[in-house]
Amino acid sequence: MSRAEATKARILAAATAEFSAYGIAGARVDRVAAAAEANKNLIYVYFSSKDQLFDAVFDAHVVRVLDEVPFTADDLPGYAGKLFDFYRAHPELLRLATWHRLERGALEALPAVAESYRSKVDAIAKAQADGVVASTSPPAVVLSLVLALAATWGSASASEIPSEDGVAVRRDAIRRTVLGLVAS
Amino acid sequence: MSRAEATKARILAAATAEFSAYGIAGARVDRVAAAAEANKNLIYVYFSSKDQLFDAVFDAHVVRVLDEVPFTADDLPGYAGKLFDFYRAHPELLRLATWHRLERGALEALPAVAESYRSKVDAIAKAQADGVVASTSPPAVVLSLVLALAATWGSASASEIPSEDGVAVRRDAIRRTVLGLVAS
Repeated sequence: MSRAEATKARILAAATAEFSAYGIAGARVDRVAAAAEANKNLIYVYFSSKDQLFDAVFDAHVVRVLDEVPFTADDLPGYAGKLFDFYRAHPELLRLATWHRLERGALEALPAVAESYRSKVDAIAKAQADGVVASTSPPAVVLSLVLALAATWGSASASEIPSEDGVAVRRDAIRRTVLGLVAS
Repeated sequence: MSRAEATKARILAAATAEFSAYGIAGARVDRVAAAAEANKNLIYVYFSSKDQLFDAVFDAHVVRVLDEVPFTADDLPGYAGKLFDFYRAHPELLRLATWHRLERGALEALPAVAESYRSKVDAIAKAQADGVVASTSPPAVVLSLVLALAATWGSASASEIPSEDGVAVRRDAIRRTVLGLVAS
């Protein structure tokens, strides 16, 4: 890695932490520069603006991982459990995605996200046609519910009820709820 | 209503729209003053700071409505359906709650929210003891999943998959998924 590439990588890492914590409006390029031990002007040279720096972070951390958890339409409970684990391992992802939704609008406006959703909906439609998934709800509705359940205890969730219940209990509850949805 | 009360009410209404759209860091007191047709200094006289103006909005719009949808532990599918309808009718609520989570931290730190959660968890525990709700998952886990499902298509949801499916189809899918959770 060249020295310029190393600096860019440090800036991106610092910007990920900054945007995850403060969002787009709240982020400060000064803090990113200090954390990355980089010159503030260099950030503008490399990324043009705070907004474009956010785009770079979002592209690196949210868009690229869309398909990191393999989608298994014939095993939606297993998929939901793996997605739950993935969100736990990468707490910044749901925060960045939520900032995007609040400050920029729906993620589906991004071509990579729209394409990822479309292929998952198609796979569920096929699983329904094959009788592997119940056809009670339309495939897009099934996908939305599965994603909502997997994100239940995510960092920006609407439902962070405090409890002593462990990770395994939560994962199991998500899996069983999705199983009910798939089998209903 | 006195003239001062009327001005305060206009400021709160304008601040609700501003914070819902832009969050705490992104909100501008100038815009609130212009929208409320109020003097900017008056906002500081009444509410001290932008942060305390957010507190007032949050208290009026999120905390006070916590129990507006009656909680029915013996009919969790019905509760989830009504909560879904409530979120649709008040799209600013989930946005304000999500801004709070991202910019201030978990809602449960607020006494009124913690108390509301606690009484709901107790009611589910009782319904489980009575055999009305399955005891497969701990009561706090059940509540989290019900709240997550009801917010699936909320304005800051992790799962806004585009689809042509109507409101009734979505509400029905939420109700049936909660029914599976309750009966499992």
